[in-house]
Amino acid sequence: MAEWTDYLASHRDQFLTELLDFLRIPSISSLPEHAEDIQQAAKWVASRMKKAGIEEVQIMPTEGHPVVYGEWLHAPDKPTIMIYGHFDTQPVDPLDKWETSPFKPVIRNGRVYARGASDDKGNMLIPILAIEALLASEGVLPVNVKCFFEGQEEIGSPDIPLLVEEHKDAFACDLVISADGLQWREDQPAIFLGFKGMCALQVDVKGPGHDLHSGIYGGAVQNPLHALVHLLDSMHDGDGRVLVEGFYDTVKPLSDSDRRQISAVPFDESEYKEALGISDIFGEVGYNTHERAWARPTLEINGVWGGFQEEGVKAVIPSEAHGKITCRLVADQDPADILALLETHIKCHTPIGVAMTTQRLSSFAYPYVMPSDYPGNQAVHEVLETLYGKAPYYVRLGGTLPICSHFRDILGAYTIMFGFCLEDERIHAPNEHFRLTSFDRGQTAYGMLLHKLGEYDTL
Amino acid sequence: MAEWTDYLASHRDQFLTELLDFLRIPSISSLPEHAEDIQQAAKWVASRMKKAGIEEVQIMPTEGHPVVYGEWLHAPDKPTIMIYGHFDTQPVDPLDKWETSPFKPVIRNGRVYARGASDDKGNMLIPILAIEALLASEGVLPVNVKCFFEGQEEIGSPDIPLLVEEHKDAFACDLVISADGLQWREDQPAIFLGFKGMCALQVDVKGPGHDLHSGIYGGAVQNPLHALVHLLDSMHDGDGRVLVEGFYDTVKPLSDSDRRQISAVPFDESEYKEALGISDIFGEVGYNTHERAWARPTLEINGVWGGFQEEGVKAVIPSEAHGKITCRLVADQDPADILALLETHIKCHTPIGVAMTTQRLSSFAYPYVMPSDYPGNQAVHEVLETLYGKAPYYVRLGGTLPICSHFRDILGAYTIMFGFCLEDERIHAPNEHFRLTSFDRGQTAYGMLLHKLGEYDTL
Repeated sequence: MAEWTDYLASHRDQFLTELLDFLRIPSISSLPEHAEDIQQAAKWVASRMKKAGIEEVQIMPTEGHPVVYGEWLHAPDKPTIMIYGHFDTQPVDPLDKWETSPFKPVIRNGRVYARGASDDKGNMLIPILAIEALLASEGVLPVNVKCFFEGQEEIGSPDIPLLVEEHKDAFACDLVISADGLQWREDQPAIFLGFKGMCALQVDVKGPGHDLHSGIYGGAVQNPLHALVHLLDSMHDGDGRVLVEGFYDTVKPLSDSDRRQISAVPFDESEYKEALGISDIFGEVGYNTHERAWARPTLEINGVWGGFQEEGVKAVIPSEAHGKITCRLVADQDPADILALLETHIKCHTPIGVAMTTQRLSSFAYPYVMPSDYPGNQAVHEVLETLYGKAPYYVRLGGTLPICSHFRDILGAYTIMFGFCLEDERIHAPNEHFRLTSFDRGQTAYGMLLHKLGEYDTL
Repeated sequence: MAEWTDYLASHRDQFLTELLDFLRIPSISSLPEHAEDIQQAAKWVASRMKKAGIEEVQIMPTEGHPVVYGEWLHAPDKPTIMIYGHFDTQPVDPLDKWETSPFKPVIRNGRVYARGASDDKGNMLIPILAIEALLASEGVLPVNVKCFFEGQEEIGSPDIPLLVEEHKDAFACDLVISADGLQWREDQPAIFLGFKGMCALQVDVKGPGHDLHSGIYGGAVQNPLHALVHLLDSMHDGDGRVLVEGFYDTVKPLSDSDRRQISAVPFDESEYKEALGISDIFGEVGYNTHERAWARPTLEINGVWGGFQEEGVKAVIPSEAHGKITCRLVADQDPADILALLETHIKCHTPIGVAMTTQRLSSFAYPYVMPSDYPGNQAVHEVLETLYGKAPYYVRLGGTLPICSHFRDILGAYTIMFGFCLEDERIHAPNEHFRLTSFDRGQTAYGMLLHKLGEYDTL
């Protein structure tokens, strides 16, 4: 093996200690009270990048959470690769479902448990460590590298497009490699060709001016909870189709070739049900599970609340009721158009006796698909095949990386996902974790990929 | 005026101070962590009864919260009246809607603000004070009196039927007067002939074994929130009728005479809407507001919750979702039968991919109606007419006093409501309050009523 892999092996314990330090910072981007923690995480990242030998490291402020940028540009005539990742995390609730505290990382059975372990701090640290190993062992990198690590991915990166636009010369690159991604299986790599767009909305139902006694007023006034469940139920039929008028109008139907590519990826229904703890699969009629999750638009209720939620009985008609909705979109759905359709739907489904208002929430992203024959994919294909001993599948992802369409639209560069999360690692849920074997494999993979990309003059 | 009214007037400040002390005890019966506060409230009540001259005062334990009992039985050949009230309260949430702390009573604009001020501590204290005034001024009471104050009314009095049954000789009486009741208006009395029965149920929806990322799994698994809103919405049609099969089967239709009695009570729709802060009235087609609220059965959702409820976005399919339901019932609906119908409905509306379980909650009461020509009503009619200068309306109440059907069934005694709460006093809601004028008026009214009942040999 090369000298740089020896470097990774000999620094293994130190890197793990550093990962645990990174995971202790509660950098939840959606909760205003954690804004200072995001700043602290940014400082940690900047400091770690400098230590790795990355140059011109700076924390770039935005209207919201910052970006940490750094570069190494001493490979003339070689492509310029921008490495992307994020150091913010999802919230932690329901906190009582965590076996250990989300920001006190612990290692159990070769996995590190913490919020952000897999999405995305563990993954984001990997390329920094690979760069350090290459620079320490070889003195140079095989390509020019720019690092772009952001603190607002989990809220839809609202300030990133403007920042990228304002510094588009500084960020110019041939290809973006995203460290925010999945392995297909521990023994099976994949290349991710597309992911969904997103938009999010909160609906607030307002009825009586104050909570009412449900004995004295029950049946005689509109109950905001009745209005809420009626509205939310009106958004799907019993076959899993979205009933918001116009929702599917701009959706590109799946081609035969799309369906063949998706069918080439094995799907084990029993294994899937067991992993999720569900009795049956369910979704839009006419599509299989992979098609639903990867290539069909969805509307999901993410939260509802109103009235009494404690133990026992409180005989109340609440004054208010609330719901949160996100849609995941596919080409060519425009998230702004979908929000407008939702708002119209809500207006048309407001019953007598209550008012409904909507708030557009900050998660907003266009759907993204890249051509499977893009040259950058070939380099990734070769590295993955060497590393796993198997050719990668070509798949899509139901999740959203809004940054990718911004890089495509502003910098003219495609984004290839190159991350090492696994599907069972409970990202966005209690007991998120990351395999230490993935942490090691990722470092090797990045070293190999940078060398492989160095064999190209252009991308 | 009689000497006993002078006694009330000269002790006004002291009685108010005592009311505030009583209101400071957070005796919430539905929350297990407040069990000790209920005991403390019981002790406070027992002590105050003894001070008034009530004899044989004792705290009677039950499996749950206790009853405080006392008596004064030195009026041979006179009727025996049992006075009923409760010293437990509703919970306080949403706490952030209270202008002042619910268990730190304050007086503003001649009203005392606190949880339980109107329902029922203020009202329950009134007869104790009236008895004290009569005994202090006249040495005797005009009738035999038994006091029965309980600590579990707000959870449906689950242990009371057994207690009454076990001590039915001790509790034997000709008539029950309930201090848990309403005035019609400040300037208009009413006699309450009936109130609704009740049953309560929680439904728990269980989907995936843990929360899922709504991008990766959205559209491919059943979302417990979708199942919940579909279930809950299936329980009503758009015209306010309950769609649970069999729900109306045993309901006695309103007679022409019932409808005439109800129509005799004025209803001002604008005033009603303004008081509640609603834009429109809404309810079951074919009935007016008083009929809906007083004489038709209802099904109300009292709470729903599941998934993410904080500020911002969390892209999650939650593992669980929950709803709380109460039904208010009219003759001849049996609450046990209605619970069984609800359970069947839920079973029939469980979609693929989730499990739904139900919990029967402890609020359980049979509907109750008393004949308007019952002699006890005549005594009350005369007292109210004297006190207000107007004849009382004969009305019903949408609320529930489960104790009344127990007294009717076990002791063979009717219950007449004789309370001084007013409809705008936000009982069961934030900023509950009680008018000090009502506190004074009630004391006078109880003195007059006990004298009037003393004119009867039998009831």
